Amino acid sequence: MKVIMDLCVVPIGVGVSVSKYIAACEEVLADAGLKTDLHAYGTNIEGEWDAVMAAVKRCHEVVHALGAPRIHTNIKLSTRVDRDQTMEEKVASVERRRREG
Amino acid sequence: MKVIMDLCVVPIGVGVSVSKYIAACEEVLADAGLKTDLHAYGTNIEGEWDAVMAAVKRCHEVVHALGAPRIHTNIKLSTRVDRDQTMEEKVASVERRRREG
Amino acid sequence: MKVIMDLCVVPIGVGVSVSKYIAACEEVLADAGLKTDLHAYGTNIEGEWDAVMAAVKRCHEVVHALGAPRIHTNIKLSTRVDRDQTMEEKVASVERRRREG
Amino acid sequence: MKVIMDLCVVPIGVGVSVSKYIAACEEVLADAGLKTDLHAYGTNIEGEWDAVMAAVKRCHEVVHALGAPRIHTNIKLSTRVDRDQTMEEKVASVERRRREG
Repeated sequence: MKVIMDLCVVPIGVGVSVSKYIAACEEVLADAGLKTDLHAYGTNIEGEWDAVMAAVKRCHEVVHALGAPRIHTNIKLSTRVDRDQTMEEKVASVERRRREG
Repeated sequence: MKVIMDLCVVPIGVGVSVSKYIAACEEVLADAGLKTDLHAYGTNIEGEWDAVMAAVKRCHEVVHALGAPRIHTNIKLSTRVDRDQTMEEKVASVERRRREG
Repeated sequence: MKVIMDLCVVPIGVGVSVSKYIAACEEVLADAGLKTDLHAYGTNIEGEWDAVMAAVKRCHEVVHALGAPRIHTNIKLSTRVDRDQTMEEKVASVERRRREG
Repeated sequence: MKVIMDLCVVPIGVGVSVSKYIAACEEVLADAGLKTDLHAYGTNIEGEWDAVMAAVKRCHEVVHALGAPRIHTNIKLSTRVDRDQTMEEKVASVERRRREG
């Protein structure tokens, strides 16, 4: 089962600057060989359910290991069985609609 | 690693009435032996990371099997390594603060 | 336009204990006369769009005033124009489905 | 009060293809003069709280007017009073951390 996910990891109890922890999560996702796209409020991920979820768990382990006592994470995820769809297709589909007015 | 999660499964492409699918998810969570609390905009779940995530995956499988071609799911989840905390304690802590002013 | 919302306010940069800030938000919602239900991972709110959104903004103002330099907030919200629905009806609808199997 | 938001509008009861509705929301945000960035699982928005929230409300009105009986929306939003920050700075900050290892 393929999943497209938006992942946003928020370390709590380490002050206001959290980019160090997000960078570590980016490393975890890259090491997992997942297709990702970092944006200003999270990271989009595309892959098989188990691989993606294993990477999310690893992010929590790594962020705790870096010193965050508490982590709040937001996930949006979508699965579909009617057809395959990529992250690029989702964006292109909206942009095509806009051009067509 | 223990997790407290808020899970909200939104089946897409099956019309506006989605309670049948949410009820099926509640069955999945109950069958998994997880501690849960259904509220008006999701279900809170408390348990070990792997058990909770396995149940979320099973929810997607079951909702697709019931006919939903597409599923959009929201997850909030929290882990902490400084101390153990239950769902009840989180609510009680806020209510105690309110009484104390 | 009526809205049912799930609101989760996460103050950042104030340590791991955030119940003081959540309690202040509960006060804001109560003062606004909104129908609410606190759960372990947020607060459900039912009301008119403008009144609910004004209260969310007030929560941010109050939590900043209490000393939080940064706030991360999650909102799920739903509007519908086919019929009116309350928070209680949403829960009851799922529970009825489960009884009926 | 400035806000950085991730907005994801999910029309319900209109089938599996929702790009028409998302494109309409993009128009609303553009008409509002807001700074935005469309990604595969939502749209990032940067602006003043009231202007951003007015646009979100307008998205709901427009998507209902296009025929969606029900809408489920996810919002992540962040405000900070310690310093100003843009969407570009958030991404650049994470990427700089990764390069520095």
